[in-house]
Parts: sequence; structure tokens; C-alpha cells
Amino acid sequence: MTDSPAAPRAPRGGKRERLAAAAADVFHRQGVERTTLGDIAAAAEVPLGNVYYYFKTKDQLVEAALGAHRDRFAAAAAELDRLPDPADRLKGLIEGWVGQRETAARYGCPFGTLAAELDKRDDGLDRSAAAVLQAVIDWTEAQFTALGRADARDLAIELVAAYQGMSVLTNALRDPEVMAGRGRRLTAWIDSLARPVDQN
Amino acid sequence: MTDSPAAPRAPRGGKRERLAAAAADVFHRQGVERTTLGDIAAAAEVPLGNVYYYFKTKDQLVEAALGAHRDRFAAAAAELDRLPDPADRLKGLIEGWVGQRETAARYGCPFGTLAAELDKRDDGLDRSAAAVLQAVIDWTEAQFTALGRADARDLAIELVAAYQGMSVLTNALRDPEVMAGRGRRLTAWIDSLARPVDQN
Repeated sequence: MTDSPAAPRAPRGGKRERLAAAAADVFHRQGVERTTLGDIAAAAEVPLGNVYYYFKTKDQLVEAALGAHRDRFAAAAAELDRLPDPADRLKGLIEGWVGQRETAARYGCPFGTLAAELDKRDDGLDRSAAAVLQAVIDWTEAQFTALGRADARDLAIELVAAYQGMSVLTNALRDPEVMAGRGRRLTAWIDSLARPVDQN
Repeated sequence: MTDSPAAPRAPRGGKRERLAAAAADVFHRQGVERTTLGDIAAAAEVPLGNVYYYFKTKDQLVEAALGAHRDRFAAAAAELDRLPDPADRLKGLIEGWVGQRETAARYGCPFGTLAAELDKRDDGLDRSAAAVLQAVIDWTEAQFTALGRADARDLAIELVAAYQGMSVLTNALRDPEVMAGRGRRLTAWIDSLARPVDQN
């Protein structure tokens, strides 16, 4: 059951996670349809024969990649949750998106483009992809609720849609500045929502 | 050069255009990678042998589909241009998007998802896809300029990004109401931009 005599104690979870992370990255760069299990094995630096030990099909690697995206967002959200002010958490989320603008200009949003590709299918994987976006919306809604907004759900959908939209344009136009500019506007928008209404 | 003895006068352009339109629709529903020339021939009700007369490769059909998208947008824009008020034109554009919300819930934006899929490639087709989005941005910018907005470019990117973003979410969540709700907010936003600033 070990992978090689040279690494008898390599934790099984470690290799599985490495494959899931590699799948998420390769799907992001190439899309699911154009990717082979061999591409993912190479990216994870895992022998192809080993891949089959963990994942029998490409679809199982798609599920694993979606899991990796959920885990990445959960880790980012946990980090942001340490900030006391919900407006700062939302601005931190935007800052994280803008920080990835060069990658977005080349390949789009990692889970948005994966969801869009899977949404052409009708085999359940399309719904698994929705769960990642749903997690982002739910966390965002919680921040707007903490800001005392009764329309927290609408605002969350607006912010996540804005991110997806700027990702599509940044990618299509190959222009990271689109995301930088939209990020500044979104940050100003969060400030305007968080500020008490000016009665002048 | 005719397609069959029974239809000796069928205009060549008619069949080519039918194939291009079918390609745009099939790519929208299935994505490019999962589509065969046979799928497009069947959707266009054109014998597969005939397809090869017009298009040697699937990539040529991708170019033709992008052309069909450009033509569709140009026709819609020409229709909207007949409205005297640029704000009404922009609201008409939004109304058109919202009118397609059931299709968007199942398959996303027809050219946004095509651009996203092609953007995983690096063979020139990815840049052709950008031209469709660019045409939408340019027309939208012209409307904001006609409204006297100095920040017309930013506003155009904001509106087209909003459309792409609401398409991604509507599609991922399979919820046409996401697009309906976002459409109402965008329409109100256009009204607020078009209205003279309230000095009270």
C-alpha cells in the first residue's frame, strides 16, 4: 500500500491532497475536458499508476478539485474572520481577488470557470460546482448581516456576481487592470455601505 | 456546388449561416470540447458531408459561431439604437438579458461561457472570443458617453461585468430569479445615472 520503498511513511492523505490541489490547478489552466489523468499526475509529481489508487476516474478528480476549492475558500474565510470589522473582512476578500488578477487575466476565476464548464453537463457534478460558489455567497451574506444590512442576501449576490463578472472580463480582455479598477470600486462600495448614512 | 438536386437554388450563404447559428447554440449547450461536427450538422439539419464543404475543422466552426454571436449582438444593438434616449437603450439591453434568464440558468451566457472555455487555450481563438465582449463594451460605452458621463468606459465595464457575473451565478445556482433581481437593480442604477443630480 505504500507508494515506494523509498518513502514508506508518506501519509496517504498527503498524496491525495496533492493530487486534488494539482487537479484544481490543471483544470483551471486547461479546463476539464482537455485534461488527462496523466496531466494531473505530472503536475502533482505522482506516478500515474498511483493516481488510480486514489481516483478511478477523471470525474472523481473533479469532485476532489471542487473539494480543494472549498477548502481553500474555508481557509481564506477563517483567516478573514479574525478581523473584528465585517467591512474589513469583505475588503480583505476583495483584496484577495485583486491579488490574483494576473492569474485571472490568463485563466479566469478558478472555481467560476470550473462551474461554467461543468454547468454544460447534467450529471450531478454541475451541482457540486455550485456548492463552492454557494459557500462564498453564504460567508459574504454573514458579513453584510453583521453590518446590520437587512438586504444582506442581495448584497452578497451582488458582490460575488461582481467578482465573477470582473473575472470573465479580465480573462477575456487579458487585462489585470480591469480587476484592479473594479476592485477599487467595490472597496469604495463596501465603505459606503458600512458608513452611517450622511444626514447633511 | 448545389447541395442536392431537390434544392438547386438553396443559397450557399443560407446553409453556412444555419451551420454557424447551430454551432453557436450547440457550443452554448455542450461546450466546444464535448461537441462533434456531427452534433452541429444534426442541429442545423444539414448532412454531415455538407458541413465539410463549408468548414474543414471544428475550430472553423468556432470562428463561425463567434461571428454569429457578433451578428446577433449587432442586430440587437441596431434595434436598440432606434430608441432616442441612451438610458432607454441601456435598459433595453438589460431587459434583453433578463428575458434570456431561463436559458442562462441552464447554460450561462452564450458568448461569456464560450469565451471562458476558449480562454483556456492559446491558439488565437481565445482572442477572437474577446472581440464579441469588446463589441458589447464599446456599444455600452457609447451609450454612457451619450448620457454625458466622463467615466463612460468604467461604467460600460461595470455593466457588462455585472451581466457576466449574474450569468455565472444564475447558471451555477440554476436560479433565473438571480438574474431578474440583478436586472431590476441594474435598471434602477441606469435611472440613477441618467437622472440629474438631486440638489435637495
